[in-house]
Amino acid sequence: MKIAYVQMKVAAGHPDVNTKKILQFIEQARAGGADVVIFPELAVPGRMLGEVWRERSFQRECILCGNEIIAASKKILVVFGNLEVLEPEADISDIFNSIFFAKDGKLIIDPVEKYWNLNDEEKYFYSPNHASPSISIRIGRKKYRVSVVLGLDSNHEKNDLILRFIDDPFRSCKITSHQRFSPNKCPVIQVGAVGIQNTGKTIYTFDGQSAVFNSRGEVVQIAEPFAECLNFIELEEIDKMPALKLPEVSEAEKIYRAISYGVKNFLEQIGMKKIVIGVSGGIDSAVAAALYTKILGAENVYLVNMPSKFNSSTTKNLSEQLAKNLGCKYFVLPIQESVDWTVKQLEEVGLEVSNFVKENIQARDRSARILAAVAASVGGVFTCNANKAESTVGYATLYGDEAGFLSALADLWKFQVYDLARYMNEKIYKREVIPQGIIDIVPSAELSTAQNVDEGKGDPLKYPYHDYLLRAFVEYNLSPESILRYYKDGNLEKEIGCAEGLVEKYFPTAQDFIADLERWWKQFTGIGVAKRIQSPPILAVTDSPFGARAESQNGVHFTKNYLELKNKLLAQ
Amino acid sequence: MKIAYVQMKVAAGHPDVNTKKILQFIEQARAGGADVVIFPELAVPGRMLGEVWRERSFQRECILCGNEIIAASKKILVVFGNLEVLEPEADISDIFNSIFFAKDGKLIIDPVEKYWNLNDEEKYFYSPNHASPSISIRIGRKKYRVSVVLGLDSNHEKNDLILRFIDDPFRSCKITSHQRFSPNKCPVIQVGAVGIQNTGKTIYTFDGQSAVFNSRGEVVQIAEPFAECLNFIELEEIDKMPALKLPEVSEAEKIYRAISYGVKNFLEQIGMKKIVIGVSGGIDSAVAAALYTKILGAENVYLVNMPSKFNSSTTKNLSEQLAKNLGCKYFVLPIQESVDWTVKQLEEVGLEVSNFVKENIQARDRSARILAAVAASVGGVFTCNANKAESTVGYATLYGDEAGFLSALADLWKFQVYDLARYMNEKIYKREVIPQGIIDIVPSAELSTAQNVDEGKGDPLKYPYHDYLLRAFVEYNLSPESILRYYKDGNLEKEIGCAEGLVEKYFPTAQDFIADLERWWKQFTGIGVAKRIQSPPILAVTDSPFGARAESQNGVHFTKNYLELKNKLLAQ
Repeated sequence: MKIAYVQMKVAAGHPDVNTKKILQFIEQARAGGADVVIFPELAVPGRMLGEVWRERSFQRECILCGNEIIAASKKILVVFGNLEVLEPEADISDIFNSIFFAKDGKLIIDPVEKYWNLNDEEKYFYSPNHASPSISIRIGRKKYRVSVVLGLDSNHEKNDLILRFIDDPFRSCKITSHQRFSPNKCPVIQVGAVGIQNTGKTIYTFDGQSAVFNSRGEVVQIAEPFAECLNFIELEEIDKMPALKLPEVSEAEKIYRAISYGVKNFLEQIGMKKIVIGVSGGIDSAVAAALYTKILGAENVYLVNMPSKFNSSTTKNLSEQLAKNLGCKYFVLPIQESVDWTVKQLEEVGLEVSNFVKENIQARDRSARILAAVAASVGGVFTCNANKAESTVGYATLYGDEAGFLSALADLWKFQVYDLARYMNEKIYKREVIPQGIIDIVPSAELSTAQNVDEGKGDPLKYPYHDYLLRAFVEYNLSPESILRYYKDGNLEKEIGCAEGLVEKYFPTAQDFIADLERWWKQFTGIGVAKRIQSPPILAVTDSPFGARAESQNGVHFTKNYLELKNKLLAQ
Repeated sequence: MKIAYVQMKVAAGHPDVNTKKILQFIEQARAGGADVVIFPELAVPGRMLGEVWRERSFQRECILCGNEIIAASKKILVVFGNLEVLEPEADISDIFNSIFFAKDGKLIIDPVEKYWNLNDEEKYFYSPNHASPSISIRIGRKKYRVSVVLGLDSNHEKNDLILRFIDDPFRSCKITSHQRFSPNKCPVIQVGAVGIQNTGKTIYTFDGQSAVFNSRGEVVQIAEPFAECLNFIELEEIDKMPALKLPEVSEAEKIYRAISYGVKNFLEQIGMKKIVIGVSGGIDSAVAAALYTKILGAENVYLVNMPSKFNSSTTKNLSEQLAKNLGCKYFVLPIQESVDWTVKQLEEVGLEVSNFVKENIQARDRSARILAAVAASVGGVFTCNANKAESTVGYATLYGDEAGFLSALADLWKFQVYDLARYMNEKIYKREVIPQGIIDIVPSAELSTAQNVDEGKGDPLKYPYHDYLLRAFVEYNLSPESILRYYKDGNLEKEIGCAEGLVEKYFPTAQDFIADLERWWKQFTGIGVAKRIQSPPILAVTDSPFGARAESQNGVHFTKNYLELKNKLLAQ
């Protein structure tokens, strides 16, 4: 049995586009002599559709598309994922995520169904485990027992083949699906989609993960991550093939691949070709500039430096150097006059404008006044360059540096942004496009004299420690009670993963430690939540991107156990 | 058996606060001679907590609080909802939404449990149906058979009493739970919480819905909506009590109650006492001004009019009149100089600034430059006054009129905003605080000469029709295919609920109708989605507030059936 499997780029919500492509791949598989061609789960509708699942006309569209595919199955067994609707004309109908088997213009068996509660999309999406009983298919004179698996479950009956459909987005630190299966005692063909899909606020990339495993559970063929492709395999050859040695890929490379693929595809999807980036001379905007320039070309990237009286010539020069290195268009549009004018207008009607208020006026003047207008003028969009540490504690101004069409870096901790900078210089550009000065300078918002970079002053976040503390809040669901217990037991650095010695260096006393801990917990669970609600969409590379991570504006809470432990420590 | 039931205001995420209150209510019930006191489902933790459910320290806190409540149950049966954790110290543990029965310091029966999948909060929240087998409780010498119902299910065994726990947020157009139950052949005591809870983007109000039903299913006692209270009832008296005649409440009154309660509680929760509102002379900002002034007092509300050269003296005068009627502080802060300056800055670096770009510069200048700075200066926040029709089609500028700390009106169609204006004038203020001129004027953004209100020009939305078309998109999940079929069949107005004759009046030809339909569908499923992702939190009054309504940025799609039908109609 010659099998073609298609790691297809699925366009969510566009059954017509997907069906056209499926029909082309069927032709290609037939031309290549395949007996069977396999498409991903939900290849016709896509998965992340929200309320569109409830539209009866969309459901009918999927059925019509499915019928076209079935009609095109002459002399080849076509296996594809589609929506199945139980009673399409009834007022309320059940829908299923189903795998269809069609040959010579008709279904050869009942679809393998997974019931889909419409209220349940998100949940379903994270645990799509389902194994069918074995089914029997005939190719030529031979009969094969095949099990269909949706997700990670396995079927333990004796089979000739397992078809595993996988629809799991890319995550930077996961064990890939190539590593996590035990042997199945028969070959496995695993098929997934590539492309991007989104739940509105969260943009997921899909790397495909299509592969062939032999009966010993070893990978013998693998599709390139993020690449749309049709591959062939002879079932009878699988167990004779040697195990592939999978390439080692660095964390920075994995993240670069996912982010550049995600951004590129998102731009294509929304039809945007021109990008405006506010560059401050800091690391986040520099990484964004290098990333978008690689994707769109320097001629389509506008870098805008917007100094106030607080910006040093150090960072102004670094911004200019960055633009030169990349070859992008570069504008300097100062904000001081406008900020002064705003303050004057407010003071004239009797309002007092504090220095803190002036800081935020600067941030909003840059994004909402200048960048948005520049983007609209060039027919493009402007980026949000926030990282995950800033997003966690709301260290950004709403309608200021928190604004933009997409946050490409907001699921990365600051150390990962630095890793990406070094990776792009070394491996992508193979020269220093991001000036070393930007990598070396202290991170600073430069909104006041208290943040003077030339005096080594900068952000209140000490990233080598706070990156890890905040990751523990967000990704491990550890609250101050747990953190303080680790601190007391002397194993905090080990538990959160930061370098040894930092806690003592930054916090000489328990009082210092506790003040810092409470400060950031309050920011994370207080104003941080409010800011994240209005933040741009985020490109996900973890299991816990903000937006997908459920959170409520419930105000700050410290547990009784925490308060008790705190009092004990402070009394010592 | 004398029963006290508590329609308690639950603070989500604050078990300490809730427990303190529960202990006080237990005292009050005991002092009133009650044998039993009943608290709402999840009275200790609250429900909408997101990832906080996974924090082990929070789980422990709930258990500790539960133990305090159990310890306080001397000589009274205390029935309360709390989180139950199966193995609190295990690495992974199952959690339950449980009802506890405690007397004389200990649990008298096993908790009535509903398994709770942590990935499943949202879904659970919408269908909390669960009926326990009957349990037996003893009061004095007498034994009672009681069934516990979480949500709307019923238990059909023969009981002396049903305790029904309801935790369903307010919805303006629902059939209330007082109407939807069939008789249970025994009395029912229904207990719910009041307060607000939120999933971040969506703020829900809880009206409580606590009531006592006799064996014939008639309401014999009812708690005031949205009021925290402890009520007493004698079980043996229930079937002797006459059915209550429930008051008729107009739709506008229901919505006003929910919105004013929601806004008031949200302000208290985030600790905000001062509000800044940009007033344009239009209906949305006027309703917002009247609403916030009633809640906070005129001395805490700052109305800001921000004219450009396009603003008529008509709307400027109406704004001033509104401020006078309400007695609020009133500023006029023009934007023309700043807008001109921005255009000049862009033109000086060689950019062309079109009229459309200038329109959006105005909108952002008002919100992100002025309102945000005024709010910060007075130590307050500024409001977003968008309605649901504008939100549906993205007829608002990001970081401009789409910005604010809360959208109190964004789950209301334009006709509901007008209803609310009239209701507040007539019933709340009992005088014309919202000038009739604002109710009568054509809705207009006044961003260009094309929107001159004195010439009767205004928004592209014809609300008497588009309100209903857009409601069909959003709340009925009808796509253009269904709409066009209704149009063809001549029953569109009836199906979507607008006045008869409007379709012919606005759209003389099928071509006009189709162009309009496609325009708004594209806006709704295209740029509208992108804008809603970054919009402020929305106060919910329906089942489909944006934010809670799942949607993806997948671009615009028309089904094949739609295109076929369209071609037929255009060919005629």
